[in-house]
Amino acid sequence: MSKEGETPKAASPRRSRRAGGREARRAARAADEGGHAVRPGMPGGAYKPLGDGDIERIHDAALEILETIGIGDPIPEILDAVLPKGCVLGDDGRVRFPRALVEEAIANAPKSYVLHAPDPSLDMEVKDADVILTTSGEPVKILDYESQLFRDPTLVDVYDAARLVDRMEHIHYFGQPFIAPDWSHDLYVHDMNTAYAALAGTRKTFSLGVATVGHIDPLISFFDLYAGGEGKFLERPFCCFGGCPIVSPLRFAEENAEVLVKLAKLGLVVDVAIAAQAGATAPASLAGALVQTFAETLACLTVVYLINPACPMNFGMWPFISDLRTGAFSGGSGEEALVTAATVQLVNHYGLISSVPSGMTDSKTMDAQAGYEKALTTLAAVLAGGNMVATYPGAVGSLMGQSFEGIVIDNDMMGAALRILRGIEVTEERLSLKEIENVVFGDGHFLNQPQTLELMRTEYLYPEVGDRRPVGDWEESGSPTVYDGAHKKVGEILSTHYPEYIDPAVDAAIRENFPIQIEPSDMKPGNGRWS
Amino acid sequence: MSKEGETPKAASPRRSRRAGGREARRAARAADEGGHAVRPGMPGGAYKPLGDGDIERIHDAALEILETIGIGDPIPEILDAVLPKGCVLGDDGRVRFPRALVEEAIANAPKSYVLHAPDPSLDMEVKDADVILTTSGEPVKILDYESQLFRDPTLVDVYDAARLVDRMEHIHYFGQPFIAPDWSHDLYVHDMNTAYAALAGTRKTFSLGVATVGHIDPLISFFDLYAGGEGKFLERPFCCFGGCPIVSPLRFAEENAEVLVKLAKLGLVVDVAIAAQAGATAPASLAGALVQTFAETLACLTVVYLINPACPMNFGMWPFISDLRTGAFSGGSGEEALVTAATVQLVNHYGLISSVPSGMTDSKTMDAQAGYEKALTTLAAVLAGGNMVATYPGAVGSLMGQSFEGIVIDNDMMGAALRILRGIEVTEERLSLKEIENVVFGDGHFLNQPQTLELMRTEYLYPEVGDRRPVGDWEESGSPTVYDGAHKKVGEILSTHYPEYIDPAVDAAIRENFPIQIEPSDMKPGNGRWS
Repeated sequence: MSKEGETPKAASPRRSRRAGGREARRAARAADEGGHAVRPGMPGGAYKPLGDGDIERIHDAALEILETIGIGDPIPEILDAVLPKGCVLGDDGRVRFPRALVEEAIANAPKSYVLHAPDPSLDMEVKDADVILTTSGEPVKILDYESQLFRDPTLVDVYDAARLVDRMEHIHYFGQPFIAPDWSHDLYVHDMNTAYAALAGTRKTFSLGVATVGHIDPLISFFDLYAGGEGKFLERPFCCFGGCPIVSPLRFAEENAEVLVKLAKLGLVVDVAIAAQAGATAPASLAGALVQTFAETLACLTVVYLINPACPMNFGMWPFISDLRTGAFSGGSGEEALVTAATVQLVNHYGLISSVPSGMTDSKTMDAQAGYEKALTTLAAVLAGGNMVATYPGAVGSLMGQSFEGIVIDNDMMGAALRILRGIEVTEERLSLKEIENVVFGDGHFLNQPQTLELMRTEYLYPEVGDRRPVGDWEESGSPTVYDGAHKKVGEILSTHYPEYIDPAVDAAIRENFPIQIEPSDMKPGNGRWS
Repeated sequence: MSKEGETPKAASPRRSRRAGGREARRAARAADEGGHAVRPGMPGGAYKPLGDGDIERIHDAALEILETIGIGDPIPEILDAVLPKGCVLGDDGRVRFPRALVEEAIANAPKSYVLHAPDPSLDMEVKDADVILTTSGEPVKILDYESQLFRDPTLVDVYDAARLVDRMEHIHYFGQPFIAPDWSHDLYVHDMNTAYAALAGTRKTFSLGVATVGHIDPLISFFDLYAGGEGKFLERPFCCFGGCPIVSPLRFAEENAEVLVKLAKLGLVVDVAIAAQAGATAPASLAGALVQTFAETLACLTVVYLINPACPMNFGMWPFISDLRTGAFSGGSGEEALVTAATVQLVNHYGLISSVPSGMTDSKTMDAQAGYEKALTTLAAVLAGGNMVATYPGAVGSLMGQSFEGIVIDNDMMGAALRILRGIEVTEERLSLKEIENVVFGDGHFLNQPQTLELMRTEYLYPEVGDRRPVGDWEESGSPTVYDGAHKKVGEILSTHYPEYIDPAVDAAIRENFPIQIEPSDMKPGNGRWS
């Protein structure tokens, strides 16, 4: 983060990274300075599932695909940008990308950018193998704790989710966590309100899935109004837009491709997520799934680069896994964790901005299965050094539903994953020879050593709702699960944390110009949602 | 495993390892051959939390401690072995180890061995960074699913645990999972019966914690009786013994040190677990905790080596973590996962046999917290390449209690961790260019490709109780947790799986010679424990 005062390293393509050692010490120092055990932007890369030869093979195969099979259904704006640069439109309507052009895009595309937040003190730099954890979209249901049934989300739920995430230390970025089907009949209202929900609920940076390219200009006007004048948003864009511009295998998706072109022209971060599903819309072989999604995401990168070489893109290569017995998506599988980590290694190898999903689970509720599946995928992605790791806090049912309690539980899990990521600082002082000698020849206990107190907050992380009580205390309190504890915590936060992040005069102006459905009465205590 | 027919590589000290690439392909090939996605003994090492310079620093500090502070309370048998080789007994009663002697032990101690099982087809080779997953000891309570209260275990529970583990694919080794306080007044009866429980319940290799060195000879006689004659057990020892020969910081523990000496003389694998607790009996600094436990475990290694240079030792360096706010042990913390992975990297760096704990949780029940804490520690240890990873399936409450249902849930988690460990095979065939071309220019779907069916069992792993059903099916079945599903599975297995692994005539002979308290009526259906 900016606190460190380091100049970002010049990114060069194909450099390989080494975490541990110096990087661990840099991370530890920076975290210590803030009095926290962990922070956003700590460097990963200590886990490398692929050998270097593997990366070459995947690279060659992906570029061969782009050159020989190409991408179908290119929209006119894409053809306008890429054909003059040497791409070829075949009789079969597929656009093919010469190898040299793709490699030029890989080499020259931006390797870092600043992710602005409504609160500038929460700005983050996206670079190297530094890790930022986000919520992401977009489940279509909310899991009710009491009934253990799924219900439809509302726009007000999006606002509540933003307020909750605002208080979660280890969720660094608020990606719109679900859609609100109450406004699926009017997506303009939907998109303006999810934007409002984010701005009203959190000062963290956020992202929106936009239904159509036509919503981008109104959203920019909205954000200009919030930020105090026309052009203000583009000066420091505190919201990212994105979508999935590819229909796998290897075709463009019209609406989202239009969004991609628009963002590239504006120079706004293009946040794509290419989610080909192994065994369904990509090869069942994990290597083949990597090859195809790499090719698909490279096609997007090349298009963005040819439109605007200075435009950053989150290289959102998201190979998804099927349960091959049923063909259903399995977000919580070991295979998912593995391809995700391999993706991070592959993308980071070129210095591009890696964006991957994790924290998905096939469980329908926040049980032990959700716990381990989310942890396995998240730790793999984090240790590999994913830049933008969509950890899907609270998402259940293979992204079908969202649990508010799960957001709180997963925040603890994400903190622990970050603590592992931080690594161990092996300095003269921390080797602790003096302390060992003192204790062996002294009173025999380390708890009284000054070092112990000093490290209590800077080297150790403590869970918010994770239960560390002794067995007896737990039994006496009725043997609760962490899900029960999280439910209590959600109620505490959401019944009290009604931030006023939007100035009342600005709020009035926004409501005058946009069809805001989240009423002022929804935004203070006593609204009946949270007691 | 032996199936691969590979000659074990000669181990050299200080070699560094590289997983991924060739190793991943070797693992994948071997797993495929058996028609399984994963297997015991797949190579790890792709996760390296420490930089090489860090290892040097920890090494130097640990050897300095052994040379200057030494280990207190050496028992006479240890002094007899080490003083003639150059160790020095100080006026303060501490024995100090010259650096060169410790380095000689590191360089020359055995780097691999065969772990025998009662069923020879389940023998495993322990070597390199190959990963074997085990249960381990020793919680003192059992968590009852119905009441969510803890109760005292019995010897029959140990037998039931062995039967359950016998059916768990990803638990490769049965370490005595809890003690049975019903016989704490007579530890001879206790130890003979835990041995019986293991032999009667599983054909996998197993280990026992022995209360005193005096139990080793009777146990060997017991096993000879089982194996068909005097001396048979030592020919292929299918049970490991161990304990904790160190009281941290830096003193020998009398009884367990005697066990260590006895095992070294017999040439049996010495299975130590040195569990100094950071912030309590070791420095709060994670680096300092590594230094001290490394020194303590090296002291054990050097003693074993000086007694019997051919005797293998599990280098069981188990730095534990405290919650520094209370001083209580926190087995499920991110710090625990991190020091464990660092330990593996450190120990594997020398080619020694790494043995680490994982899968611990501070939760008291099998909830989401248990799920994620167990997964984080296990994945870190597995990816680092721990040889003997005590994954503590079903253990809860920071090793205070044991859940039978947890064994089944954790088996799925361990399988997923192994699937991640296996890595991705990046071969010409698996790059799948042909399949991609077929589908793009064909019917657009990969599910029908022959490759998909071929990889269904060999590249993909499926959970036993993990729930992958659609949301609707789950709601209709009453919204169960995986804990509920596991309870059903435990009942199914334990009410039916009554193996006859001990020949009736041998069983009679054992019962004649040893005070077996697990009655034949406990070992068949209708005993009232499982309906």
